[in-house]
Amino acid sequence: MVYQFSFHVSTRGRGSYSISDEVYGCLDESGVETGICVVFVHHTSASLMLCENADPEVRADLERFMARLVPDGDPMFRHVDEGPDDMPAHVRSILTSNSLSLPVAGGCCDLGVWQGIYLWEHRQAPHQRRITVTVYGDCTVVLGSSST
Amino acid sequence: MVYQFSFHVSTRGRGSYSISDEVYGCLDESGVETGICVVFVHHTSASLMLCENADPEVRADLERFMARLVPDGDPMFRHVDEGPDDMPAHVRSILTSNSLSLPVAGGCCDLGVWQGIYLWEHRQAPHQRRITVTVYGDCTVVLGSSST
Amino acid sequence: MVYQFSFHVSTRGRGSYSISDEVYGCLDESGVETGICVVFVHHTSASLMLCENADPEVRADLERFMARLVPDGDPMFRHVDEGPDDMPAHVRSILTSNSLSLPVAGGCCDLGVWQGIYLWEHRQAPHQRRITVTVYGDCTVVLGSSST
Repeated sequence: MVYQFSFHVSTRGRGSYSISDEVYGCLDESGVETGICVVFVHHTSASLMLCENADPEVRADLERFMARLVPDGDPMFRHVDEGPDDMPAHVRSILTSNSLSLPVAGGCCDLGVWQGIYLWEHRQAPHQRRITVTVYGDCTVVLGSSST
Repeated sequence: MVYQFSFHVSTRGRGSYSISDEVYGCLDESGVETGICVVFVHHTSASLMLCENADPEVRADLERFMARLVPDGDPMFRHVDEGPDDMPAHVRSILTSNSLSLPVAGGCCDLGVWQGIYLWEHRQAPHQRRITVTVYGDCTVVLGSSST
Repeated sequence: MVYQFSFHVSTRGRGSYSISDEVYGCLDESGVETGICVVFVHHTSASLMLCENADPEVRADLERFMARLVPDGDPMFRHVDEGPDDMPAHVRSILTSNSLSLPVAGGCCDLGVWQGIYLWEHRQAPHQRRITVTVYGDCTVVLGSSST
């Protein structure tokens, strides 16, 4: 069975935003017990990541690393129509992920204890970002029998 | 239902090549309405990306960025059997993606308006690259009934 | 049909470890003929990669590249609770992949001839890493009939 859901996240500009709860909600609604959950972001200047979810300093360090690796306003870039963070946002997006494929087990997203799901906004300005969650696998079998 | 298709792309050497039409063709042939389309490249010196599809300068900037980050002929590299672009091609491949998982909705690849599908050739010489598209999900139901 | 398997890999610290045989074993057990095999690592300081599998110098060069790009002990990093390789491990993980989506064809993992599946340990100390393999697709049809 395949289930598909879309939702939007309003970002306040560059930074990472937890979407674990939204993804878990889609999974619950699907009723899938065993399978895969694919999270996809429909943009080329934002991305998705599984990141350490306990110390916010990790995501701050990631921002600092990216700011040094792909600096805004780098004179090498010619695609600057939307400003100095335009092309760096595309590069950051290519270096990270536009989809995550997560195992579903026992009706839950089977992530490691430190893995959180984040949308990473790479533009400086606030944006509305669309995300689609596709869940497929074996569904809950009614009457208490096991689904496997 | 699962459908699988393979095709080859003849590259003219380093650079990115649109394969959106080829992937959309596979999806059409599958008849899948709702699901996932996995695009996979069978090589370690080429990769796949979803990239901005309007201004070719974006992909030129990406090339410039990669050429600076992973320069051909870097004396640090020891795997140089096939020339100065051999190891950089492997590194570029690892830093980007060898597969894309794309949502399928309404029988179409549900990409963002600016997202195009590209094969990224990292070797300087022309190569023949093999790509496999696997589509799975709920098929078109005839007679107008809903597919879910 | 969906099949799911988990296994652990005991690493001896930073470096890459072939897990092709373990993944192929899961695939054999599933009996899936045509479909997708998703390999997932449940950690944020280790990752997965498809890498050239013939010359070990390729993976040594990748280590050297990453050591230069994301140096241990970089004073920019503030998340240092577990030592100088703590934050670099998270960055390396984000720049590479936490899952691989591999095509299954003819009951086998349809990889390119030079593609091997590796777990990449980014911490200096030995770790126990959990990996889940989810296989879905059309199963072997008995009595010699075609599965498609």
